[in-house]
Amino acid sequence: MIVLVINAGSSSVKFTCFDLKGAPQVLAGGLIERIGIEGTAMKYTNAKGDVVKGEVPVKDAQEAVRLIAQRLVDPQVGVLKALGEVKAIGHRVVHGGESITDPVLIDAKVKATIRDCFSIAPLHNPPNLTGIEACEAVFPGVPNVGVFDTAFHSTMPPSSYLYALPYDLYTEHKIRRYGFHGTSHAFVSRKAAEILGRKPADCKVIVCHLGNGGSVSAVSGGKCLDTSMGLTPLEGLIMGTRCGDIDPAIVWNVMKIKKLDLDGIDAFLNKKSGLLGMGGVNSSDLRDIEAGAQSGNQQCVQAMEAYAYRVKKYIGAYLATLGGADAVAFTAGVGENSASMRALILKGLDGIGLKLDLAKNQERSDQARFVSTADSPIKIAVIPTDEEREIATQTLAVVNRGR
Amino acid sequence: MIVLVINAGSSSVKFTCFDLKGAPQVLAGGLIERIGIEGTAMKYTNAKGDVVKGEVPVKDAQEAVRLIAQRLVDPQVGVLKALGEVKAIGHRVVHGGESITDPVLIDAKVKATIRDCFSIAPLHNPPNLTGIEACEAVFPGVPNVGVFDTAFHSTMPPSSYLYALPYDLYTEHKIRRYGFHGTSHAFVSRKAAEILGRKPADCKVIVCHLGNGGSVSAVSGGKCLDTSMGLTPLEGLIMGTRCGDIDPAIVWNVMKIKKLDLDGIDAFLNKKSGLLGMGGVNSSDLRDIEAGAQSGNQQCVQAMEAYAYRVKKYIGAYLATLGGADAVAFTAGVGENSASMRALILKGLDGIGLKLDLAKNQERSDQARFVSTADSPIKIAVIPTDEEREIATQTLAVVNRGR
Repeated sequence: MIVLVINAGSSSVKFTCFDLKGAPQVLAGGLIERIGIEGTAMKYTNAKGDVVKGEVPVKDAQEAVRLIAQRLVDPQVGVLKALGEVKAIGHRVVHGGESITDPVLIDAKVKATIRDCFSIAPLHNPPNLTGIEACEAVFPGVPNVGVFDTAFHSTMPPSSYLYALPYDLYTEHKIRRYGFHGTSHAFVSRKAAEILGRKPADCKVIVCHLGNGGSVSAVSGGKCLDTSMGLTPLEGLIMGTRCGDIDPAIVWNVMKIKKLDLDGIDAFLNKKSGLLGMGGVNSSDLRDIEAGAQSGNQQCVQAMEAYAYRVKKYIGAYLATLGGADAVAFTAGVGENSASMRALILKGLDGIGLKLDLAKNQERSDQARFVSTADSPIKIAVIPTDEEREIATQTLAVVNRGR
Repeated sequence: MIVLVINAGSSSVKFTCFDLKGAPQVLAGGLIERIGIEGTAMKYTNAKGDVVKGEVPVKDAQEAVRLIAQRLVDPQVGVLKALGEVKAIGHRVVHGGESITDPVLIDAKVKATIRDCFSIAPLHNPPNLTGIEACEAVFPGVPNVGVFDTAFHSTMPPSSYLYALPYDLYTEHKIRRYGFHGTSHAFVSRKAAEILGRKPADCKVIVCHLGNGGSVSAVSGGKCLDTSMGLTPLEGLIMGTRCGDIDPAIVWNVMKIKKLDLDGIDAFLNKKSGLLGMGGVNSSDLRDIEAGAQSGNQQCVQAMEAYAYRVKKYIGAYLATLGGADAVAFTAGVGENSASMRALILKGLDGIGLKLDLAKNQERSDQARFVSTADSPIKIAVIPTDEEREIATQTLAVVNRGR
């Protein structure tokens, strides 16, 4: 029951090898980065605690996957006897457009769909497809499954996904809200129902996935009704380097001021903005901004407050979407680990039913748990997400169903 | 106590002549449109019921103001004996930047500030200034007062007004949220406190100004904490022809798809989008979209629902901003007159404290009133706005204070 999970980016391949016999177990995992660039580096660790690190020459995704395969069966640090033990490979794919609403076995048609979405996910879909093709070459005969970031959000109604633009942009050019981080929103909303002791079908949950990227979703009865990311992962929250919501007129005003062309403004708002741009300490990492704020840097204080306030507004908006909620769940790097950011986001929300227990909020744990007071009308949860494990589980389900 | 109110647009001048001795009374008012274009038309009405309509040759704002002055003292339809009776002229000015936080007597410095904001309000500030200069020429010696759309929003904290962009765009280029419709938000939030029987200082009110343009604001203790319009009036709600909130990446995607330059995308998102673009009945008027929806046009149904849902999200967001509210107030053309749109916006919000009384909601009235049930935790109000009267009142206050 070995499932390999691959997340192929533009110059990196992340991998995790699971054994799904019984409770999912990580056998090995790691990362190859700077592929095709000078100084390609690989990190490989296994469950026994072996760590292999160092520079390796890797010119493309196929070489990267071949190297991962070699490590997995390596006599010293490997975890498999033969590659034939790999039952399926699950791929994180960012954009599945409108037609893909569930994890799917990858065939020529699915690959065509991934390709159709190149224009709306130019940074992610091309390397995702390259990763799939590399696996087809290196693991011939092993089924590949696509687990799409957008799939969980496919249940949104038109009032959530339509923009107020000429209608042909939707019908002809597929300009609409898609949403991302779907695997995490699905997993965390289900887990929230579990710790509430209820079925997902009976719960309304707001999931705040706050990592380097970030998005909020409104989930009712296990279905996504709205999410803060849009056509691309740029919309919504303030992120590490992304601006999130802005007045659209800012785009052309900044293009004029900074003399940027279309690629230039894309890079500017995706890579130079967010906490990096506003925080003033040349870092996109919230921990550095928090440290700056603590040492009295006012720009950092403002960045923290603006970041928190944006999340707060989405929580309020989605309370309206859902007409109330059973729980608000925090997940991902910032959501799981920054007690001070959670406190800042929830400050003043007692009046609308969210009462944070300040002591519980400070306790560290890797377990899904509540951090609200016993009498909080809406529960506040911290739920560690695990997108890799979720991809592995879904991949196995697809392969088993396919038989 | 005669005060003239002028609202000068790019090709039109609206005017209202008030007597402010006692309760404000409209003596006369009207509009000159298509100034400098073939077929310039003037409409003038007075309190006695006289209506003068017709084409007149008017080549610029100064000629328009001169014509207005002539009508006001006309032996037949005039309302003044002499122009000397005009004590002050109040001007609606859209953008006052960061420095103007109240209505002000217009001098060279204020005119320079209006000019400094040309780049961020290119459609509004230039004609606003032209209107002021026309009045200076036609009414020599009469004080001119600027009442700025942005002024009421100047109390917003940085977490509301800062965008997550490189900080120099704020410090050097003044790229921030300003907000508009301030005169209406100020008037309606004060009126809401009045009908709640409380002081503005003790109230939290969410104002939904829904006209051809539209914006929502969160007002606490009489001060604006946040508003949905941003650097320009494009951000926020779905409007007649404006898109409101979109993924910023849509801007360059649409520029590529539609082959638009910077002026082209500006016009596209400001003038071809919103209800006009999405509704499919070639109208930016919500009444036409409602009629279309009633006759079964699915695109109209979706446009109505998307419009309502956007307002609903802002109500929720600002409940979080304020930590609860005493009232949500609807105003302006759609907010005051469309009972069906109010019902659609508020549908499902019982769970977060907003209970609409469906019968009261249907009653027509020109009075400020509640349309919520007696036990609604948050009151729902319909409050007719009157920006002209508010400008007149503020103008008189400035002139009196100045002495």
